[in-house]
Amino acid sequence: YPGTYGAPQPAANDPMWGYFTAIAGQDGEIDAEELQRCLTQSGFTGSYTPFSLETCRIMIAMLDRDFTGKMGFNEFKELFTALNGWKQNFMMFDQDRSGTVEPHEMSQAISSMGYRVSPQALNAIIKRYNKGGRIFFDDYVACCVKLRALTDNFRRRDTMHQGSVNFQYDDFILCTMAI
Amino acid sequence: YPGTYGAPQPAANDPMWGYFTAIAGQDGEIDAEELQRCLTQSGFTGSYTPFSLETCRIMIAMLDRDFTGKMGFNEFKELFTALNGWKQNFMMFDQDRSGTVEPHEMSQAISSMGYRVSPQALNAIIKRYNKGGRIFFDDYVACCVKLRALTDNFRRRDTMHQGSVNFQYDDFILCTMAI
Ligand SMILES: [Ca+2]
Ligand SMILES: [Ca+2]
Ligand SMILES: [Ca+2]
Repeated sequence: YPGTYGAPQPAANDPMWGYFTAIAGQDGEIDAEELQRCLTQSGFTGSYTPFSLETCRIMIAMLDRDFTGKMGFNEFKELFTALNGWKQNFMMFDQDRSGTVEPHEMSQAISSMGYRVSPQALNAIIKRYNKGGRIFFDDYVACCVKLRALTDNFRRRDTMHQGSVNFQYDDFILCTMAI
Repeated sequence: YPGTYGAPQPAANDPMWGYFTAIAGQDGEIDAEELQRCLTQSGFTGSYTPFSLETCRIMIAMLDRDFTGKMGFNEFKELFTALNGWKQNFMMFDQDRSGTVEPHEMSQAISSMGYRVSPQALNAIIKRYNKGGRIFFDDYVACCVKLRALTDNFRRRDTMHQGSVNFQYDDFILCTMAI
């Protein structure tokens, strides 16, 4: 997927449209349970453990700018672009296909995605997402989702590109509790 | 539990000490799996669904100020104080013991805990934590844990009590990704 925002195709001409409507069901949007079912049945995770419902919930939250709790078609396509990128990145480090990566590989993966974070922040992230000293694919994706959502929220408020944002308490809660 | 910070009792005289060491095992600290086992076997959740491993992980993260990923004795006691308070609050609203509360009851519960957040922020929180339009006990506790951890992080930086904090990007990531 190119992941560009050129002139959008009419949804009905998009090859993903049929797939999307089948998953979305009657209400025309995808919720966390439907997303989990879709990602499990499509074999997206391959030999890795399927995504937990919690990870699927935050995938939706990452793109849910209108706070509906569900995902529309364009958000669905955006998610697949991101997921494919994260999966490729993970598999690059998980050469033996054990389903896990080491902490230093997690740090490298985060840097390679373009995030500039201190060793202290990386350490806190790794402590939070590791299980028994290794990082599993589901937790790695959950981490990527949160990093992206929080960074997007921060950037949107850093209009002067200063690398800092003055947060009122309520806005801080709004943009950190929603993901 | 009184939840005060007076002169600490010697740990060995504390009735909770034997219980703590039994759960913590050889390394002397409690990790997420040990906490989940403890809360399930003690019957803390009563007729409610037991806590998920993810909720137990963030309970530890809430108090994990040295980023070890595990919980020591004082943190363990602090957690139980908080858990008992949250449980009482939830049961006050879940009169019929269905195991869930309604969105407006969730908003009331959050206000009654002393958090001053806008209707917009409350709406975002409810969208994030509801399942099928209701809020289950496990998700309610996960929400309380996050609210408390994020608010603590915010307050610690708001030294002038202005209700606003200027965050550098790295510090923002450090204090939002760790929970
Ligand atoms: Ca649907
Ligand atoms: Ca949406
Ligand atoms: Ca232990």
